[in-house]
Amino acid sequence: MDFRSKPGDDDGIVSTMPVRAPVFDPPFNVVRASHVEFGVRDLTAARAFYVDCLGYLISDETRDALYLRGVEERNHHSIVLKAAREPMVDTLGFKVASEEDLDRAASWFAQRNLPTSFPDVPHQGRTLRTSDEAGMPLDFYFKMDQAPSMLQRYAAHRGARIQRIDHLNCFTPDVQASYDFYADLGFRLTEYTATDDPDPKLWAVWMHRKGNVHDLAFTNGRGPRLHHIGVWTTGALDILHICDVMATSGYLSNMERGPGRHGISNAFFLYVRDPDGHRVELVTSDYLTVDPDLEPIRWSLRDPQRQTLWGHPAPRSWFEEGSEFAGVPQREPMLAAHPIVAR
Amino acid sequence: MDFRSKPGDDDGIVSTMPVRAPVFDPPFNVVRASHVEFGVRDLTAARAFYVDCLGYLISDETRDALYLRGVEERNHHSIVLKAAREPMVDTLGFKVASEEDLDRAASWFAQRNLPTSFPDVPHQGRTLRTSDEAGMPLDFYFKMDQAPSMLQRYAAHRGARIQRIDHLNCFTPDVQASYDFYADLGFRLTEYTATDDPDPKLWAVWMHRKGNVHDLAFTNGRGPRLHHIGVWTTGALDILHICDVMATSGYLSNMERGPGRHGISNAFFLYVRDPDGHRVELVTSDYLTVDPDLEPIRWSLRDPQRQTLWGHPAPRSWFEEGSEFAGVPQREPMLAAHPIVAR
Amino acid sequence: MDFRSKPGDDDGIVSTMPVRAPVFDPPFNVVRASHVEFGVRDLTAARAFYVDCLGYLISDETRDALYLRGVEERNHHSIVLKAAREPMVDTLGFKVASEEDLDRAASWFAQRNLPTSFPDVPHQGRTLRTSDEAGMPLDFYFKMDQAPSMLQRYAAHRGARIQRIDHLNCFTPDVQASYDFYADLGFRLTEYTATDDPDPKLWAVWMHRKGNVHDLAFTNGRGPRLHHIGVWTTGALDILHICDVMATSGYLSNMERGPGRHGISNAFFLYVRDPDGHRVELVTSDYLTVDPDLEPIRWSLRDPQRQTLWGHPAPRSWFEEGSEFAGVPQREPMLAAHPIVAR
Amino acid sequence: MDFRSKPGDDDGIVSTMPVRAPVFDPPFNVVRASHVEFGVRDLTAARAFYVDCLGYLISDETRDALYLRGVEERNHHSIVLKAAREPMVDTLGFKVASEEDLDRAASWFAQRNLPTSFPDVPHQGRTLRTSDEAGMPLDFYFKMDQAPSMLQRYAAHRGARIQRIDHLNCFTPDVQASYDFYADLGFRLTEYTATDDPDPKLWAVWMHRKGNVHDLAFTNGRGPRLHHIGVWTTGALDILHICDVMATSGYLSNMERGPGRHGISNAFFLYVRDPDGHRVELVTSDYLTVDPDLEPIRWSLRDPQRQTLWGHPAPRSWFEEGSEFAGVPQREPMLAAHPIVAR
Repeated sequence: MDFRSKPGDDDGIVSTMPVRAPVFDPPFNVVRASHVEFGVRDLTAARAFYVDCLGYLISDETRDALYLRGVEERNHHSIVLKAAREPMVDTLGFKVASEEDLDRAASWFAQRNLPTSFPDVPHQGRTLRTSDEAGMPLDFYFKMDQAPSMLQRYAAHRGARIQRIDHLNCFTPDVQASYDFYADLGFRLTEYTATDDPDPKLWAVWMHRKGNVHDLAFTNGRGPRLHHIGVWTTGALDILHICDVMATSGYLSNMERGPGRHGISNAFFLYVRDPDGHRVELVTSDYLTVDPDLEPIRWSLRDPQRQTLWGHPAPRSWFEEGSEFAGVPQREPMLAAHPIVAR
Repeated sequence: MDFRSKPGDDDGIVSTMPVRAPVFDPPFNVVRASHVEFGVRDLTAARAFYVDCLGYLISDETRDALYLRGVEERNHHSIVLKAAREPMVDTLGFKVASEEDLDRAASWFAQRNLPTSFPDVPHQGRTLRTSDEAGMPLDFYFKMDQAPSMLQRYAAHRGARIQRIDHLNCFTPDVQASYDFYADLGFRLTEYTATDDPDPKLWAVWMHRKGNVHDLAFTNGRGPRLHHIGVWTTGALDILHICDVMATSGYLSNMERGPGRHGISNAFFLYVRDPDGHRVELVTSDYLTVDPDLEPIRWSLRDPQRQTLWGHPAPRSWFEEGSEFAGVPQREPMLAAHPIVAR
Repeated sequence: MDFRSKPGDDDGIVSTMPVRAPVFDPPFNVVRASHVEFGVRDLTAARAFYVDCLGYLISDETRDALYLRGVEERNHHSIVLKAAREPMVDTLGFKVASEEDLDRAASWFAQRNLPTSFPDVPHQGRTLRTSDEAGMPLDFYFKMDQAPSMLQRYAAHRGARIQRIDHLNCFTPDVQASYDFYADLGFRLTEYTATDDPDPKLWAVWMHRKGNVHDLAFTNGRGPRLHHIGVWTTGALDILHICDVMATSGYLSNMERGPGRHGISNAFFLYVRDPDGHRVELVTSDYLTVDPDLEPIRWSLRDPQRQTLWGHPAPRSWFEEGSEFAGVPQREPMLAAHPIVAR
Repeated sequence: MDFRSKPGDDDGIVSTMPVRAPVFDPPFNVVRASHVEFGVRDLTAARAFYVDCLGYLISDETRDALYLRGVEERNHHSIVLKAAREPMVDTLGFKVASEEDLDRAASWFAQRNLPTSFPDVPHQGRTLRTSDEAGMPLDFYFKMDQAPSMLQRYAAHRGARIQRIDHLNCFTPDVQASYDFYADLGFRLTEYTATDDPDPKLWAVWMHRKGNVHDLAFTNGRGPRLHHIGVWTTGALDILHICDVMATSGYLSNMERGPGRHGISNAFFLYVRDPDGHRVELVTSDYLTVDPDLEPIRWSLRDPQRQTLWGHPAPRSWFEEGSEFAGVPQREPMLAAHPIVAR
């Protein structure tokens, strides 16, 4: 039985799918997913995890914040860790193509009665703080302090030798609404999961701006919540190595799922949880998606190889747990579904 | 809590362990685990699995048998597939150091009232057919037809690029008895699992002749049965690749466990089942064990990292299923234990 | 001594460099380097090299042409091999973002008195055939026949498991002119080599559209000629494997340079020559370049790590030989320089 | 043209070769090559190289000595660095199978009028200090202090994650004599290079005790001198990584040869020079050689793939330079030959 609809299939389902043509002239130009701000209860523990174990580089450190980047990143930070009473996510950061795009973005959000402000953000230029219609907090900026590229300072590569941030993956109570919102902003669909109803519903979507499988993904679930950030490694052996390191240095219980190969996106992955429960996916090897006529790949929600090509079910925590956005109320999901759970 | 006893630990448990000093002057000289003969119901299906999927090289093919070897093997075969009505194992093959060792072995087994014969075996020289005290069938030989090494004919490497046979792993109803039997033959213990009783019992043993972690391992269970053969790959990426191949070419359900890292032996592994259910472990990266004073590593049966350093439980089938030896009655195990099972 | 100018350096040289701000609103939208048409004298020999050795997939085969693609490519072809009397390159193919971009491109080239035509090209939609000011033949198209993605049909991956085309690298007699031409078309500079004169000259440039280090590169030399096409592999081990395969299956003399690590682009590489002398670079692991404010990296022509981070000089052939474009006259380069040659 | 004689070839040359059957009952039982003592002029510089760059673990450190081991080694040291006025090698260490073997060894060397003594050696048990007939200093011991295995303390693995010492490779003025000497001690030949004369001469030999291609190798050259020690890594990517590290952290000129694939032994290799010029080969992936009837592979001295399967010539320094043994006079080699030199 073939659950997947590959480009060229003509099975009559795609045509009824609520999947639209890409928007090539969006109201403003988002370049890529850029960074995340994690609230953490114990900066020392968070530092041990991200820096000493995973190998993140420190760009700056203050009394209550730590700014981290991967080895190829010249942007000052792709993860900000901030001291907080409870674990939460302050904001998801996106880079836009110019200062003018910031103004266009501000108008666009304001027109939709979404909150807009331009707070001072350390190490960033002008930053638009807003949120999407589900309430998910978003920061848009064009300029960020630049740091030396450490890509060819190999002696400083540690742990998983993480190269860069790759994507943000979120729970949303309404995948169709989230898809529509970001599709309007020019995010292009590359793969999606749908139910097999006569009237099929979107269960999850993977959307990109930068040219690989995704900058942003949404899955049906109580939300908005952040499911995970995805961070790129050069190859699968870096991911196997960090498994060995975590398993033998006190982080065994932080290994949540994997390593394995996703059916969706073809990425080799490992999901880990930081000391505050924030989820990080180490990921490598998806594919190029810049062609404007690239047809999205549809996966059936019932396809067991959708999540793991090799057939390993994910644990319940992976389906249910996520990071809350600070002060953002959540709603229950539109769809009830029963994914295959490990235990 | 530390479940492991490393060399140098002095926790008072090792001393009560039924673990003996190695025998350096065995009655005859076994060089290594050499081959296995699998009875298979459908040679065509078996060939598709071993040759087309895993990438084994064919040394010879008759109407009812297929002789296979890995890319570095000059010995004619390390797996023999024979047409059979039911899946089973005909014999486990070991190479000895000389023709004289064969005669010494024959005497030794005969003295213990174990069966001995010298049947004609294709592609092998004089072959002693016997069995151990649990009834497990054994073939010892010195000479085998030699085949061209394909190690540097890289264009012929396919699938998992399997290099060679590494070890044989068996269920035994009495681990202590099996350990004692093979220890007498000069097999040296490298790692073992024991219960945590005041009077600790052996649960599993890993023993070698050739200088890495094992040629032969025993686990407590209904037996004698073959649990699996272990076959060597150059690196972990060959194992990840065969996961991808199997998962997308009709062999998904043949992937039983892994990939993962064993705590025991430190090997990176994948367990697969052939179309008849015979289990093959693809394995790489253990360590050198030739030092005569290498102290065995003890693992507690309760140590969750014993089986998988990364914490993944094995499926029930992995604990319970194995290949029967043709015509050999089985006994229930001495110990009852409850390993951590996935589902 | 530090030959490199990294972003943030302020050594007074960058400012005098003939390097311009990127053009973000080009006259038409080129998506990426797409394909190449190689004239080959012996299709059977070319097929043996590209398909049997390197592992390219065949999309179509006619009496005098072979259409090839990598395992992730859904575009029908990224290499076309055509029977020809002499080795040469027919055209370099680029994908544009829409049919309208083709018309905009045709106008733009016509305005510059460059030849434009719309020949019928098998498996492609409307195709603009033109050339740049140096005479280098260019094909632009939007639509191409789509073929099944083989990315997750791993059993069909062979040889170097080439994923996709990555870039085109050309000799030009005037690097500054070529840089200016393609910069106007929106190609963005990521790295460049310059002389150390008080009035520094561009020696080589790397420019991209798709978001990694390059789609198109130019080096000072007799031209226009194609230096090589770059094709992407998942990791370095695929490249080491193809070294082993080529070295032991009759292609030893086709291995021209590498494997090694480029200083420029950080890519791990191997240069091979096909039976007609066309050069193919197998390459992996550069970095993301989508940020509009990414500052180009300057390398001194005298920096020995520019070409190979590990210090291995390239052979003379690599500096001097290239593929001619069919019927296109060549000019000697503007700059005379003396790179470090192996032998 | 095929330069190699593989097992099964019947070309009439092997029979005239001065290559003998292995000695299976040697006068004493050498287990393996164990360690080397390097005299270095600057312990701080040596420590930076071995520990900070290559990733060796420190077992002990005194004012004038540093004891190092690889991550899987439980023996206290495999490299000893000692402060010295000039770079030199104090001794090559071999482990024997028992204290009795030490006494048998002492008798054997004494009978041949070779020097024998039992000096106190830190961290080692009784140690026989002697030399071979060429004057090469040898230490034999059975017991060494044991250190914790760090194999599964992955967070401590750094640099090339060196696993263990693999072999010692020496220049000898008389390869035939050295071969005969160590063959008598039970070292088994696995591969060798010979001239193509009607009366062929041995040019180089690879001999083992522990079951892979070699513990000890000899090459024709002014000697005795140590050419290099070989140290084992888990895979080729560890070697590529250390290339990147060395090339970008001040050790570019210490990279002498490689990475590449040896024809002989099939090992993937990199040769580096420590700050005193001592040569270390990082090496991985040869093959199992425990079979007593394994036929040695003969390579012609004229075979260009003998040294590097991929055809890269070695630099002159690699052929000519080596480490002197403290106080040991050298002789010019018996054979004059002209290997293929890079530059």
